[in-house]
Amino acid sequence: MATDRPVAYASGPGHTGSFREQVTKFQSGTSTPRDYLERFLDRIEHSDSEIQAFVTLTIDTARDAADASGVRYRDGKPVSLVDGLPLGLKDIIQTGGVPTQSGSPIYKDWVPKRDSPVTAALKRDGAVIIGKTATTEFAAGAVTPARNPYDPERTPGTSSSGSAAAVGDGMVPVAVGTQLMSSVMRPASYCGHVGVKPTYGAIRQDAIHPFSPSGEHVGAHAHALEDAWHLLRQLAHGAGPVPGSRGMTGPVELPEAQQPKRLLRMYTPGWELAESSVRDAFEDALNRLADAGVEIVEPESAPELAAIEQDFGQADWCIAEVSAFEMRWPFFEYEGEGHGFHPRIGKLLDRAHKMTLDDYHTALDWKDGFRDRFRAISETVDGVIGLTAPEIAPVGLENIGHPVMCSPASCMGAPSISLPALQADGLPLGLQLVGFHGADADMFAQARWIDDALAQ
Amino acid sequence: MATDRPVAYASGPGHTGSFREQVTKFQSGTSTPRDYLERFLDRIEHSDSEIQAFVTLTIDTARDAADASGVRYRDGKPVSLVDGLPLGLKDIIQTGGVPTQSGSPIYKDWVPKRDSPVTAALKRDGAVIIGKTATTEFAAGAVTPARNPYDPERTPGTSSSGSAAAVGDGMVPVAVGTQLMSSVMRPASYCGHVGVKPTYGAIRQDAIHPFSPSGEHVGAHAHALEDAWHLLRQLAHGAGPVPGSRGMTGPVELPEAQQPKRLLRMYTPGWELAESSVRDAFEDALNRLADAGVEIVEPESAPELAAIEQDFGQADWCIAEVSAFEMRWPFFEYEGEGHGFHPRIGKLLDRAHKMTLDDYHTALDWKDGFRDRFRAISETVDGVIGLTAPEIAPVGLENIGHPVMCSPASCMGAPSISLPALQADGLPLGLQLVGFHGADADMFAQARWIDDALAQ
Repeated sequence: MATDRPVAYASGPGHTGSFREQVTKFQSGTSTPRDYLERFLDRIEHSDSEIQAFVTLTIDTARDAADASGVRYRDGKPVSLVDGLPLGLKDIIQTGGVPTQSGSPIYKDWVPKRDSPVTAALKRDGAVIIGKTATTEFAAGAVTPARNPYDPERTPGTSSSGSAAAVGDGMVPVAVGTQLMSSVMRPASYCGHVGVKPTYGAIRQDAIHPFSPSGEHVGAHAHALEDAWHLLRQLAHGAGPVPGSRGMTGPVELPEAQQPKRLLRMYTPGWELAESSVRDAFEDALNRLADAGVEIVEPESAPELAAIEQDFGQADWCIAEVSAFEMRWPFFEYEGEGHGFHPRIGKLLDRAHKMTLDDYHTALDWKDGFRDRFRAISETVDGVIGLTAPEIAPVGLENIGHPVMCSPASCMGAPSISLPALQADGLPLGLQLVGFHGADADMFAQARWIDDALAQ
Repeated sequence: MATDRPVAYASGPGHTGSFREQVTKFQSGTSTPRDYLERFLDRIEHSDSEIQAFVTLTIDTARDAADASGVRYRDGKPVSLVDGLPLGLKDIIQTGGVPTQSGSPIYKDWVPKRDSPVTAALKRDGAVIIGKTATTEFAAGAVTPARNPYDPERTPGTSSSGSAAAVGDGMVPVAVGTQLMSSVMRPASYCGHVGVKPTYGAIRQDAIHPFSPSGEHVGAHAHALEDAWHLLRQLAHGAGPVPGSRGMTGPVELPEAQQPKRLLRMYTPGWELAESSVRDAFEDALNRLADAGVEIVEPESAPELAAIEQDFGQADWCIAEVSAFEMRWPFFEYEGEGHGFHPRIGKLLDRAHKMTLDDYHTALDWKDGFRDRFRAISETVDGVIGLTAPEIAPVGLENIGHPVMCSPASCMGAPSISLPALQADGLPLGLQLVGFHGADADMFAQARWIDDALAQ
């Protein structure tokens, strides 16, 4: 069965190509958004009974949206960079008239009346929403039946499980996920595609089920780097940023490749968990980047870098503390109604009951310091390079792996990207690049260069 | 009829006294929360058919809540500073099982399933919610039938019209309002009681109908300064801050009175609109404060102060720009459903359709600069003193008066308080004190001193 799976990452046969390449065909009339959509619908028909990436499909409205997009291209009037782009939306993102179940029995069959800003913007901008993708319980708790397209005995990663599985399998070229710790990046690593978590605040989060709003990010799963850029940039303009934030800025087109001069090597406590095959894959990539002229900087080379490496190891703690305080609403309400939760949520909820505003301040103060210390190292290095996860997708859907390598960027709100550039034991493994706050475009430019360099 | 109205401000006969005084009686057993509640229910019975402060009353659940509070006091176990406190909630604040109509036909008779963080925290903390108070359409558009308790031919002020009218009339000792420009402060000025808008972020705003989340504040209407302090402080702990913000910190009890040494006099373009009776009332208060030892600093006395006075005049513009961009959700959705709005909302919505992310950045950048310039003058002055509004409550419910004197603190997110310390033409007029970000407790301490000084 596994041999029938696509190898979606750039070097593999299942790569769907970039949507931007398709747009040229839409414009020249050699293809239509509807033709393009049908290719993915066929793939869903082929795969999803086993992979279970989607919890709700909206095929009729997707076909209507694709046809409407086709008319716009025919008339030379596409409305945005994502006009005609088929995609999946993580099922904690509210969709008017379509169930939004947040992976929880509390919201089973709940059909909200109105769209979230993300959903509304995608519709306005002509995107073709194929359906809602599986999410763990409130993007934090019980896992879903979704499976890894590279090996259905393995997890696709959590919590954006369905978004990652759908993109990894080639059922959609892109999908929208969300991340508090590692929920976009780690599944992208396990499912062999690009995952991006932009700078905190890039995209408005209203009507996405909240857990810890000060730490949540809307992110992108994509086969092609340029599609991730266009999706996120369009959302930053269309849905707008988190109120008061600046959003994601930069050029309309994917920034040109730019070689990073110096990259700080990130370990985190996750490095100790990594098997030798995983370590070897990473070391090999670092060697190849060094050969191509990138200086890989070890944290012990300077006190401020060693301090940042220490900070990386505290990010899990900080996210948990901030989350526990912020989840009091609405989770205290659910609890009052008699609902129970997976122990991953229950443990945080126990902490929530004990926390004071002072405890919350302690965590926020630490986070502020971390962010300031990280910003300061932009004088020394161009970014940070690490693994996205300390392991390939674990066997067993309950074995969700470790967020520890993604938590640092999540905690401080810096942008990060997982490139499907590595493999270990025949399975995909993400290479993570962390950029500086607000410099998402620079991070994409470097990621593009790294992707090219490692493809040589 | 107007002679039957209470004069709720401190010097008047209708002042309800402070809740904190009552708590002593609850603790000694000489009164109960239920006795206290019934006093207000009687007043509602007497007044509200004319004043129309409440759009929904929840008297049965209020009595149950008061009785439960009584048991806790009897057992010596009140759960918070607001245990047994009767109050009204502005009807844009979501209440589970109770209509939340946001002053709009779009939400007519809508009964949400769950409470907002503010509502949930008040219930957990033992407060007694008497009902929902009238709000203009989405706290921004069409006015309500609510009337000014000092003269029913006059507006109570907008948008927290019902909260202000209810407190002004003595139907509740406190009420919760919200403010984007002047929606707590100006009605408090017109209705003769204390209004407080804490530092931006003090209190979580989820499930309060959004208009411009980066500029909205949960605020308090109260007869007594100490009740406003306790209500806001309890909400900052119970509902928590806007995620990522620090909330409102400070001592449990109202801070001791503290004399401000130097206060910057605020004019704003509103000063030109003020009648001589209004100007005289303000000048008289300044003279009395000067006699008591406060140095009143004119903006032209220093370039940085003159610059701030100029900034004050730009706040309306900045709030409108930021709001127009942020209101795109959910107002574009309502518009798509065919709903129309009052021209005050319609005008912003027109602007929303024309705005780009760059326009939004321009407004946010200006706001950041304003905030930074304002913070810098804390080296020079202890706060800012001005009128809350350039007029007493105008005649006619459609004549809503001017937000221009409240917009500066709202725009930059600094705390502000309106004291019912002035009168003009026999009607109440607010004296505004603006404090520095995060220094809400200092602002309260100064307000307490000013209140005492002007009561001499």
